[in-house]
Amino acid sequence: MSTDDQRCPIAVTMGDPAGVGPEVAARAWAARRDHDLPPFVAIGDIAAVEAVWDGPVARIGDMGEAARAFDTALPVWHLEDSGPLTPGAPTPAGATCALHALETGIGLTRTGASAALVTGPVSKHALHGIGYTHPGQTEFIAERCGITATNAVMMLAGPSLRVVPLTVHIPLAEVAERLTPDLIVAKARMVARGLSRDFGIAEPRIAIAGLNPHAGESGQLGDEEIRIIAPAVAQLAEEGIEVDGPLAADALFAPGIRSQYDAILCCYHDQALAPFKALHFHDGVNLTLGLPIIRTSPDHGTAFDIAGMGKADAGPTIAAIAMAARMAAARDSACAPAQ
Amino acid sequence: MSTDDQRCPIAVTMGDPAGVGPEVAARAWAARRDHDLPPFVAIGDIAAVEAVWDGPVARIGDMGEAARAFDTALPVWHLEDSGPLTPGAPTPAGATCALHALETGIGLTRTGASAALVTGPVSKHALHGIGYTHPGQTEFIAERCGITATNAVMMLAGPSLRVVPLTVHIPLAEVAERLTPDLIVAKARMVARGLSRDFGIAEPRIAIAGLNPHAGESGQLGDEEIRIIAPAVAQLAEEGIEVDGPLAADALFAPGIRSQYDAILCCYHDQALAPFKALHFHDGVNLTLGLPIIRTSPDHGTAFDIAGMGKADAGPTIAAIAMAARMAAARDSACAPAQ
Repeated sequence: MSTDDQRCPIAVTMGDPAGVGPEVAARAWAARRDHDLPPFVAIGDIAAVEAVWDGPVARIGDMGEAARAFDTALPVWHLEDSGPLTPGAPTPAGATCALHALETGIGLTRTGASAALVTGPVSKHALHGIGYTHPGQTEFIAERCGITATNAVMMLAGPSLRVVPLTVHIPLAEVAERLTPDLIVAKARMVARGLSRDFGIAEPRIAIAGLNPHAGESGQLGDEEIRIIAPAVAQLAEEGIEVDGPLAADALFAPGIRSQYDAILCCYHDQALAPFKALHFHDGVNLTLGLPIIRTSPDHGTAFDIAGMGKADAGPTIAAIAMAARMAAARDSACAPAQ
Repeated sequence: MSTDDQRCPIAVTMGDPAGVGPEVAARAWAARRDHDLPPFVAIGDIAAVEAVWDGPVARIGDMGEAARAFDTALPVWHLEDSGPLTPGAPTPAGATCALHALETGIGLTRTGASAALVTGPVSKHALHGIGYTHPGQTEFIAERCGITATNAVMMLAGPSLRVVPLTVHIPLAEVAERLTPDLIVAKARMVARGLSRDFGIAEPRIAIAGLNPHAGESGQLGDEEIRIIAPAVAQLAEEGIEVDGPLAADALFAPGIRSQYDAILCCYHDQALAPFKALHFHDGVNLTLGLPIIRTSPDHGTAFDIAGMGKADAGPTIAAIAMAARMAAARDSACAPAQ
């Protein structure tokens, strides 16, 4: 028995069985020693793994068993037969399996049988086809954890940068009107709390990017910095949260500037994600702050076009598992007895 | 005499004498062998160099002399005494000197005595104080070259990425309404031509980023991709310009995607500059396409706060000189007789 066995395994959902989720989970297991990964269990249809991978698989039914099996085989928590499987071709049975895996992963992590939840890529389209009504997995997880989706904050984290988009999936033309001091203050508080609780940073330093070029250049290129961002920064400073901004969003991502901050809050999706993916496409992790559980995710989709071909990069899944383990350690997650 | 002497020297304006321009020009000269830089001449107040650098300086009066001096000293084309000089403290006399250096550099390059123009950082505030009315240096250069400023296209170029912002210094809330198919087509044409003429790329491949998150997700997150960008892409394709888009602006900057394109056209300032500076803060070059002359610039300001302290990074100036030399070679710039 390795010392790893003393930790609760991490729950890794494989997402859509026709996507790349099963193969990247398997390849993350194969790379467990190189990356010093803690025990984890892949949740989903065991046939989906076996269809794309010929390494050792252990069908397990409780988390203690998973921890013991991990050294020699990929532990798979098999849920159900998701029917005839063709990599790249999603089916309603596959979407049902993905949803069931998510439910199971949340349950295991909520009860403490799992130290953290890592969610594999799902097809929103296929999920909506079976009656799923949430925009993504995060909202579903928030609901199952009993919190409102607005209190779940998306963060992208990589070795040299953590970013949080203040607005996410809305048209760019609506960003200026959606940005309010209250929104910024609420999210910044959650980020500060998350950095302390999940990353062990006692006094997190946060930067807030300006909305306009050069952060508005003293109002000459837009006044949202003055009307909206500066009052939020003042409010946060009063609360004792260390926050700088609004800062020009281009220079802010230069190596010597971004390294001064534990997280950068951005006004909109691409302001956060374009520089993040430029730097951390292969080792970036999508995670959710504000949940009672630790949740990370590889920041890519089902990639149906390359599923089953052995081309999918397991790097993001490896990074997501490793980060979940570090976050769980930081939160000093109490380990419940194995089921 | 080195073989370098057969090339026309490059004209490097030192910008505001109280900024970091003089010291980065001097340090670029000191690093000429490490970076295989061609002969260049620093244009401005010789006292501004001597105030911040104790290396060899050769006061020269024609470009042939500059080429001969370059091997053993920094050639300086001295314009005028810009008065008492304190690094970090701009003066009207200093702004006048910066403007005069720009005029001289343009003149030398227009006549072919210089192979290319590299412009050092100026203070817009100080320039406006002496009656300069252009928003930046680029508009002035365009005017002196007899072209309209709208035909001068800003590109940021680094070792792994070239970006062009389609709109630049306007509030983010105005971007959607300023973006038109005509604007995109006109700029993309100029970029394609510039990549061929100045970078020697026979069939340039251009990407156009979407305006909205995920490039609008088929209209669900904004319709500018469908209404504005797609028609421009269709028009460009008809003209035989190889262009892909609209593409999701975050994934587009991932290493494996950006490497497929010779340039990425972005809808707004930060969409281009945030990922660019994340990657190429120290070796990125700002250049202007569409001019009759080659013009590059280190992508930073006067940095008055650190001027004269020896802290300024000469890397961007070195990169700007090296790129100007490569562009001049690509354009096969005819070398006029030395003045």
